Amino acid sequence: MSNAPRIIDTDVHNAVPHNKDLLPYLAREWHEQLLSAGPGAPGVYYSPLGVMRKDARPDNGGIPGSDPHFLKKHHLDRYGIDYAILTGSGILGVSLNPDPDYGNAVCSAYNDWLVETWLKVSPQYKGSILINHSDPQVAAKEIDRMGGHPDMVQVIMASGSPMLFGQRFYHPIYEAAERNGLPVAIHPGTEGRGIAGAPTPSGYPTKYFEWHNILPTNYMAHINSLVCEGVFVKFPKLKFVAIEGGLAWLPHLMWRMDKNYKGLRDQVPWLTRLPSEYIREHIRLTTQPIEEPSQPDHINQILDMLGGDHMVMFSSDYPHWDFDNPKMALQPIRKELRQKILVENAMALYNLTTAPITAKEV
Amino acid sequence: MSNAPRIIDTDVHNAVPHNKDLLPYLAREWHEQLLSAGPGAPGVYYSPLGVMRKDARPDNGGIPGSDPHFLKKHHLDRYGIDYAILTGSGILGVSLNPDPDYGNAVCSAYNDWLVETWLKVSPQYKGSILINHSDPQVAAKEIDRMGGHPDMVQVIMASGSPMLFGQRFYHPIYEAAERNGLPVAIHPGTEGRGIAGAPTPSGYPTKYFEWHNILPTNYMAHINSLVCEGVFVKFPKLKFVAIEGGLAWLPHLMWRMDKNYKGLRDQVPWLTRLPSEYIREHIRLTTQPIEEPSQPDHINQILDMLGGDHMVMFSSDYPHWDFDNPKMALQPIRKELRQKILVENAMALYNLTTAPITAKEV
Repeated sequence: MSNAPRIIDTDVHNAVPHNKDLLPYLAREWHEQLLSAGPGAPGVYYSPLGVMRKDARPDNGGIPGSDPHFLKKHHLDRYGIDYAILTGSGILGVSLNPDPDYGNAVCSAYNDWLVETWLKVSPQYKGSILINHSDPQVAAKEIDRMGGHPDMVQVIMASGSPMLFGQRFYHPIYEAAERNGLPVAIHPGTEGRGIAGAPTPSGYPTKYFEWHNILPTNYMAHINSLVCEGVFVKFPKLKFVAIEGGLAWLPHLMWRMDKNYKGLRDQVPWLTRLPSEYIREHIRLTTQPIEEPSQPDHINQILDMLGGDHMVMFSSDYPHWDFDNPKMALQPIRKELRQKILVENAMALYNLTTAPITAKEV
Repeated sequence: MSNAPRIIDTDVHNAVPHNKDLLPYLAREWHEQLLSAGPGAPGVYYSPLGVMRKDARPDNGGIPGSDPHFLKKHHLDRYGIDYAILTGSGILGVSLNPDPDYGNAVCSAYNDWLVETWLKVSPQYKGSILINHSDPQVAAKEIDRMGGHPDMVQVIMASGSPMLFGQRFYHPIYEAAERNGLPVAIHPGTEGRGIAGAPTPSGYPTKYFEWHNILPTNYMAHINSLVCEGVFVKFPKLKFVAIEGGLAWLPHLMWRMDKNYKGLRDQVPWLTRLPSEYIREHIRLTTQPIEEPSQPDHINQILDMLGGDHMVMFSSDYPHWDFDNPKMALQPIRKELRQKILVENAMALYNLTTAPITAKEV
């Protein structure tokens, strides 16, 4: 039996040296995805367009959105935008890292970098304090640490989360934001990633297209939770900004909540007004990606259903692929409301009393 | 050391003999919930109203909805309803049992019982074939087994599920339904139960009120999935009925899907028309709980946004607590559409060509 095997190892990891080595074996339509995302990137949906506008790459060759001087020229000056509320980029997902200590540290680093690299460049830039919602006690300290900076105008966090934002786990965040006179904003795109749950009540969509279509459902769930859990009763000065979710889904939610409140308000005795009244007072929406009905006037009907001309603020989502051009996106909206959306509602929320000096000079 | 313990058992289960024994120790406002739901009923939301109308208990003392003779008198005759599409009750949740063999057996038993106990009582009753969506191959056989019965007019399954209904796992169900000329209906209320995922992308609502408010988001996710995965391309005669979800959330979803389709249709090359066109052709909605905007005409605007007068069918949800009275619920809707909703759209979908003889006699 001298030929008998001596050792058999049943787990040896062989590696593909470069993703491109698989291309000869792979049908053509998957090549770009493999090259950009790699073969194993669980939980990340691949956009065939990329996430960034290809024309937004700065002159210095950096990634889109990374150069405050180029961004001012390419976006603010081009469209006559006076103020830009900076919302960060993929870094928002740090709240969904399993390790809260890492998330806390990265948020503080980002906020210091933001002050140095952006807020000092132009008074047109206003910052959002990035927080790690997985550690609300530390997030509250970060809000207190940065909240005194005159150009920090809100708190921002990922909308993907393992729990709904009305729950008391998150209340230290709202307490700190209210104490510092800052709204709390959420931004989509992390649904279904990291320690967040599946991005729908019935598991995972397949394509980026399908996933992106359904993102606003998480906004509905969070706003419902915030109202039902009494966050706006406990923190009556708090404003909550639902960024980049559009707006046409909110009338339905308000109607359903109000109807159910009539039968079930025993369960939420802290609510002394209709749920829609808390929403109108405390929730703000940004426009992009604004819905584009085939009959353009339907968007005005939706805005009437919202019932609050103060609720909606313009946003472009620059430099992302589905950017809304301020000269075009709001065209169907009736004129007096358009002005509120373009300027006045954000001035009121962020305490912007005049246009910045440099913007006037342009 | 004769007093030293000899054995310590660190897990001995003591029982509360009756739930009421805890009442002296429990604040008054929780008593009804404890008595009705027990102290440990994970995943079940407690409605302070109960789920059933208290006046719907039959003369024989059974549970509401359990007596076909009483239901005919108490509901059909009272409102002049010609046909009732029977949708079952809590039994829908059997799809979310971890054991598919149990689910399959209970569905078959229910369907045989339905024929014997209800469909033989009156031609006004039309049945829905209950299936276990956790075992689509067996569900398809059940559809074939029952599909020939002339009074079975659709297939029904729980909307709570671990996966989205567009995914190919479920296609045997649609193939069988199409083969038998039957629409597939889903019914809400099992979101977050059994083997389904959390009922929102960010975990669990707290109260029944909050959970109930957010149920339609799962309908949005399923309809999005059905269209994106090409179910209506693969099964072009299939109709899909979203029961008991209302309707005001659908225009937003159609607009968002159509807008994204323009940029991302590379990912769904099987779709040759706008997503909203598949929705208008293949999706049907039932009214209850119909949204009740404070400005009643807003519901007509929403129906116009849907863009299909054939899409919506009346439903009462009898005998549940949030029942819609057909004489009242549709009052704000413009008259010519109201008639379609009350009668014509269901006649077309379910092949009901005339009123049943007994209904004419009433």
